[in-house]
Amino acid sequence: MTTTLLPGDVIWRNGRLATLDPAIDTPYGLLEHHDLIVRHGKILAVTPALANPGCEIIDLQGRLVTPGLIDCHTHLVYGGNRAQEWEQRLNGVSYQQISAQGGGINATVKATRAASAEQLQHMAQQRLNALMREGVTTIEVKSGYGLNLDDEQKMLRVAQRLAQTNPVEIAATLLAAHATPPEYKGDPDGYIDYVCDTILPALWEQKLFDAVDAFCENVGFSVAQTERVFAAAQALGIPVKGHVEQLSNLGGSALVGKYHGLSADHIEYLDEQGVMALRQGGSVAVLLPGAFYFLRETQRPPVDLLRQHNVPIAVATDINPGTSPFASLHLAMNMACVQFGLTPEEAWAGVTRHAARALGKQHTHGQLAAGFVADFIVWDAEQPVEMVYEPCRNPLRCRVYRGEARFLEGKSL
Amino acid sequence: MTTTLLPGDVIWRNGRLATLDPAIDTPYGLLEHHDLIVRHGKILAVTPALANPGCEIIDLQGRLVTPGLIDCHTHLVYGGNRAQEWEQRLNGVSYQQISAQGGGINATVKATRAASAEQLQHMAQQRLNALMREGVTTIEVKSGYGLNLDDEQKMLRVAQRLAQTNPVEIAATLLAAHATPPEYKGDPDGYIDYVCDTILPALWEQKLFDAVDAFCENVGFSVAQTERVFAAAQALGIPVKGHVEQLSNLGGSALVGKYHGLSADHIEYLDEQGVMALRQGGSVAVLLPGAFYFLRETQRPPVDLLRQHNVPIAVATDINPGTSPFASLHLAMNMACVQFGLTPEEAWAGVTRHAARALGKQHTHGQLAAGFVADFIVWDAEQPVEMVYEPCRNPLRCRVYRGEARFLEGKSL
Ligand SMILES: [Zn+2]
Ligand SMILES: [Zn+2]
Repeated sequence: MTTTLLPGDVIWRNGRLATLDPAIDTPYGLLEHHDLIVRHGKILAVTPALANPGCEIIDLQGRLVTPGLIDCHTHLVYGGNRAQEWEQRLNGVSYQQISAQGGGINATVKATRAASAEQLQHMAQQRLNALMREGVTTIEVKSGYGLNLDDEQKMLRVAQRLAQTNPVEIAATLLAAHATPPEYKGDPDGYIDYVCDTILPALWEQKLFDAVDAFCENVGFSVAQTERVFAAAQALGIPVKGHVEQLSNLGGSALVGKYHGLSADHIEYLDEQGVMALRQGGSVAVLLPGAFYFLRETQRPPVDLLRQHNVPIAVATDINPGTSPFASLHLAMNMACVQFGLTPEEAWAGVTRHAARALGKQHTHGQLAAGFVADFIVWDAEQPVEMVYEPCRNPLRCRVYRGEARFLEGKSL
Repeated sequence: MTTTLLPGDVIWRNGRLATLDPAIDTPYGLLEHHDLIVRHGKILAVTPALANPGCEIIDLQGRLVTPGLIDCHTHLVYGGNRAQEWEQRLNGVSYQQISAQGGGINATVKATRAASAEQLQHMAQQRLNALMREGVTTIEVKSGYGLNLDDEQKMLRVAQRLAQTNPVEIAATLLAAHATPPEYKGDPDGYIDYVCDTILPALWEQKLFDAVDAFCENVGFSVAQTERVFAAAQALGIPVKGHVEQLSNLGGSALVGKYHGLSADHIEYLDEQGVMALRQGGSVAVLLPGAFYFLRETQRPPVDLLRQHNVPIAVATDINPGTSPFASLHLAMNMACVQFGLTPEEAWAGVTRHAARALGKQHTHGQLAAGFVADFIVWDAEQPVEMVYEPCRNPLRCRVYRGEARFLEGKSL
């Protein structure tokens, strides 16, 4: 490397760099005896150790370094708590009774509408803390429990505020087409009109989100309704993604592919035709094993077909109040391996390089490589598999966000 | 209450006390507007709020308080790491190849024998930290990877040392009858002789353990071999327990019942006769859902039969390097509910009152009641179900061990 280093540059030396860079032909893109050079919050270079570089050098003492983790599918912001509803079910109360009490997603919509932005932010912060503590540096956050202009706006502003007050990047997604709200009961098409004509353009105007999502399912919206949302987004140049093929095979993934969507998420019931549509659309397949576990599903996503057709696979928490209450991306990686048979390396690619692609950030996030953001984690571990195998013993030692290091309590290098 | 309080007494006031005391006829034994009074590391009384008590009062501001958690089945101390073996399996390497490389429990035995006591302690400390952070105040730790006098002794001394250096109580268990070591290959009866005649009496003499365990399974020891271990323990007045009915129904639970064992653990294949034997023996049924999940088992323990016959049910992590690498008792509670259908209240009783019974500590541990140890947790939560429903967002605010409070980083009351 011939670049002259500047006094403010920082060299992270003597780490085992799991770069996740596909150009490096080792498992996990592993490089040893390389310098990771940071300038102005970005990675300037990953290069064999330099002699006399003339800038600060931090000795990693052989510790493992990975890119910061990316959780590319979450419902982090919501009001209320469905734990007691779950407790009732485990105590034998029927779905009908709970539904009659106003349970399910309607309970979350009601509580989210009733909560102030400050309350929503406070609750989301606790979950965000758990994720950041594990090394998450980029997180997608969806709306979808407001289901009207004001409350979708409130949710997205909370996401924006979380990004302003935490060392984390947040990609916000408009999921107004999550469910039909009570005031549109029996008129989902009327609600979709409202989403396309009012909520979507108004909040896009306010720059409150980066992508548009919809829940395409028998209990959500039809393929035709979903397509109306995608078309409205496309008309404004907004990327789309979908909750598709979770409980049945409606063909939502083919729609995602057709619209060159960022990702098709859940996809337990995806078939080969759908896999090929994702391939053609350049979309990422996002696996959400927490929901699969929590709902005790048995139909597994078609991992082998995704591999055969070279569809990139991401893994996310789907953290939400009803079906995946797990604020741990390490646990999601473990579940993806145990339940779906992913290899640990696939799970790691799924929370770094491929998760970045699911957010349209594949050129700047999710790898340790020149030009990428300097978001990375130093671990008290030797192998990346350790965090996947033992998801609850968090060996994070230092979390670096845009070049700024923060140590876990009481630790240093 | 007419007891006069002393200046050193401390009143924890204004909490929501989930006492887990079966004498209190509310869910979770919940009491509000009560004082929890601590003297010399024990609970002096749980009583309606006292006027002018004349001692220190700590205001809990309505926060939830539970007994400290008890993890009654762990293999916390071990050498090495089987993560890479797991990674090989997920990459398609066969069991035969891994076994030929010396994988499986033999790998852990080899690594444990090779490790120094200091190394074992350092590794176990990380897992213990994760458990203490969740509110665990009592933990059982088994030997069983040394499989000879010196190395079983080394493991148990590490457990002893962990207890001396951490605010946690450790119940140590001799599990020399975990597997037949390589030097006794083909001669399990010879090894059982060595366990009964040498290891057990020598380490009991050194007061290094509190109970004796054995792995009764086709891949472990037969019922007859297990009984020889139990008889040797009984002759010295040592309580027994067993790893039984995990992969098949051999009748180990009936043996546990016959010897009035503390607990029968795993018990996926337990039948009604076995359940009745446990009932008659006064033994606790310990569910280990982490291993069930990790091994992708399908046969569930007979929870309904255990309920019908009033066998107390405990829940534990079984943390170990090969089949349950999860240092989270909250996650084990969640898994017991999701996978086995326990109610959250049963899961809580399973890590408090019933876990105490599985360690013979039911008169002093696992409840907020007069005469019990002052081990309790203050949570940023309203309902005990929250920790079960959302196992990864740890709302622990303050952990009190023997009356001494420690706050999670940066927190106070
Ligand atoms: Zn979702
Ligand atoms: Zn065990």
